[in-house]
Amino acid sequence: MKLYDFPGAPNPRRVKIFAAEKDIVLELVNVNLAGREHKDPDFLQKSPSGKIPVLELDDGRCIAESIAISRYLESLVPEPNLFGRDAFETAQIEMQHRFIELELFAQVGISWVNGPIVAKMGLVDPIEAAKQRSDGLVKAYYQRLNTELAQRDYIAGDRFTIADISGVCCIDFASAMVGLKPADDLTALAAWLARVHERPGLQSV
Amino acid sequence: MKLYDFPGAPNPRRVKIFAAEKDIVLELVNVNLAGREHKDPDFLQKSPSGKIPVLELDDGRCIAESIAISRYLESLVPEPNLFGRDAFETAQIEMQHRFIELELFAQVGISWVNGPIVAKMGLVDPIEAAKQRSDGLVKAYYQRLNTELAQRDYIAGDRFTIADISGVCCIDFASAMVGLKPADDLTALAAWLARVHERPGLQSV
Repeated sequence: MKLYDFPGAPNPRRVKIFAAEKDIVLELVNVNLAGREHKDPDFLQKSPSGKIPVLELDDGRCIAESIAISRYLESLVPEPNLFGRDAFETAQIEMQHRFIELELFAQVGISWVNGPIVAKMGLVDPIEAAKQRSDGLVKAYYQRLNTELAQRDYIAGDRFTIADISGVCCIDFASAMVGLKPADDLTALAAWLARVHERPGLQSV
Repeated sequence: MKLYDFPGAPNPRRVKIFAAEKDIVLELVNVNLAGREHKDPDFLQKSPSGKIPVLELDDGRCIAESIAISRYLESLVPEPNLFGRDAFETAQIEMQHRFIELELFAQVGISWVNGPIVAKMGLVDPIEAAKQRSDGLVKAYYQRLNTELAQRDYIAGDRFTIADISGVCCIDFASAMVGLKPADDLTALAAWLARVHERPGLQSV
């Protein structure tokens, strides 16, 4: 299977970590984002939104979207389980994962789109007030995560799941590229970040 | 099972339609949003984000988030299937559902938060430029959906799924409350809306 990728992009990184946790080897194909290859008609056949990542199966069928790809990989290789083992645990992991995506990742995205790097690319006119509001919501969410992670080892409970993968990819991207590194006094959040970064699946990608 | 609800809110509506499609009867409990009941410490125990919907099981355990609840209900009552039957179909439905959520629902949310009704509530300072940008992205997404729905009967393929439930709840809310009704010339989108509204599961909630 091929994964259409771009080094440093947070969404393909989610899939690469997910695959590494399951010892699934994917052939990586770098998409030339600077050359707008992801908006070419050929690529839009693979990915209707013109985004990466995309998983291309050996028979040529494609799946776009990091979490859709991750669910497919979980079906192929169920262990180690990353989406939940029974109905209630699956719902709890989905709930925590959606909090991360809808309340943290979405706000980091707004801060990124309205920040200086995207402005320099000339793709959108930055809206400073939108960036300021999202920056504040991200910092508030970091506080909430710190409180929660003082009470449990991982985002969705006592074991590593998809919620941690999305969380670490989001926070690493926010820290490196969006100027939104968690404050030093958020010690439970820092301890979780260190715990997650130590995993072999993260060190290999 | 109890569902903490608010009439007209799009996210509880997703769960009510999902349950109705499966003939699952939920006891509805209206949350007093105007009185900020959803931010009370007791309610935050049920819903860490202070949002509706929340499903309370008969043993008192709670699941927040519309899609987490829907996945739980799918586990309890697998038919009619709404999330996918095999690995590839499940991934395709998830992909299309995520397009709706990340590219349409999220933008409707930004237009709503920065629109006149929320401004009147005094909860946030509206950012007009953010509303304008999101309005434009919503209209562009309606065009895309219209093109796609000229080629297939439902959002994720040839049958009704969770992607249609999220799509109709989003578009009905955008039309009624955010001033973002699809243009009349989007005939394939209009035909899909009519097809979905005719379902017994939508007429009963």
